[in-house]
Amino acid sequence: MQIHFDQELKKLKEKLLKMAALTEGAIRLSIEALKNKDKELAKEVIKADSEIDKIELEIEEKSIELLATRQPVAIDLRFLTTGMKINSELERIADLAVNICQRVLQIADEPLVKPLIDIPRLADLARQMVKETIDAFVNRDKKLAKKVILSDSEADKLRNAVYYELVDDYIVKDGSCGPRAVPLILIARHLERICDHATYIAEDIIYMIGAKRVKHHPEKLKNNHKNDQK
Amino acid sequence: MQIHFDQELKKLKEKLLKMAALTEGAIRLSIEALKNKDKELAKEVIKADSEIDKIELEIEEKSIELLATRQPVAIDLRFLTTGMKINSELERIADLAVNICQRVLQIADEPLVKPLIDIPRLADLARQMVKETIDAFVNRDKKLAKKVILSDSEADKLRNAVYYELVDDYIVKDGSCGPRAVPLILIARHLERICDHATYIAEDIIYMIGAKRVKHHPEKLKNNHKNDQK
Repeated sequence: MQIHFDQELKKLKEKLLKMAALTEGAIRLSIEALKNKDKELAKEVIKADSEIDKIELEIEEKSIELLATRQPVAIDLRFLTTGMKINSELERIADLAVNICQRVLQIADEPLVKPLIDIPRLADLARQMVKETIDAFVNRDKKLAKKVILSDSEADKLRNAVYYELVDDYIVKDGSCGPRAVPLILIARHLERICDHATYIAEDIIYMIGAKRVKHHPEKLKNNHKNDQK
Repeated sequence: MQIHFDQELKKLKEKLLKMAALTEGAIRLSIEALKNKDKELAKEVIKADSEIDKIELEIEEKSIELLATRQPVAIDLRFLTTGMKINSELERIADLAVNICQRVLQIADEPLVKPLIDIPRLADLARQMVKETIDAFVNRDKKLAKKVILSDSEADKLRNAVYYELVDDYIVKDGSCGPRAVPLILIARHLERICDHATYIAEDIIYMIGAKRVKHHPEKLKNNHKNDQK
């Protein structure tokens, strides 16, 4: 009975990893579409989101079914409830990649208002944070999950850099660039939200591993994290 | 045993309602702060968010404890898993009210770029959608939950109206208004996201009531909704 349940949990984990890979791909492709002003690619990412939605539902239904039929306790229960939350965060992240692509479609026919520097950096950080949370989940790596949570302030900094550069150095000096600059500000906001969702996942993973809550208290991590690195 | 469990579920429901009331209040006060450029009020909303975070954790921990110790099935299981998701959505909504207040602090010392018309409308819609989802949850009202899901397109329209008016009629004509106009665009985006979260809750409620998935398929509701109104 337990062996069969373990197999079912393993299958669920594999599906969650597939979901994570598709989501990470969606972020990567949305930024490719932005860099190359590639409307076809942007449309593909938007279209492919329905596959991610489908997997999200499958994972959720399977998790609830396992909760109902197996009535797990302790670590298995925490794995299932955490898996459900990760699943839902990944779906939101994929939606944000779709939002980025919608902005790309808005600006792809015009020249970029400026060469992209901080946005690709923020996108790399977002992808890295998503990837690391999933690695932390698979390897039950609390240290890596903490690293993700501490990276979030870097995302806020990059988002602010994009915001103030575009508003103060571009829009204020020449408002006619507004229709090309404001979508970039929103893309930076979408990327920063992706980093937020990665952070939420990391908080859930720390809970799953140790039943310890760090949610809403990133400052509590700082000292611990230093100790981990010693 | 079941009577005791029912009491625990009732207490959990009451806590969720308290969380909902605080969240709805945060939206209302954030827009009050915007309308009156009231920095003190904006700071109060930001500060009060830690209370909402605290209740979110309490609800989540209690739910997991009940899942573990009571091993509920069928409707009680769906109530608990749905309650956990609603709890998490409400916390996100409250975070968005905080984001609105952060924008208010950014612009409160300057005159508003234009009289606010569509943003208060969008805010009213957002509050109404949050309120209706909670009513739908309490009264197990599938029809009301469907109404919320169908309201979401109105939120998208209002957000777009704010966006294009501020970009095309203000920023393009006079870029120097950018630092006051772009935060309003972001506030509209935050409000539209609140409506999205209300929609997610409504989808979960429909699932809780009827174990039927409408998630990612709002179009499936339209005909049913017409039938409901006959």
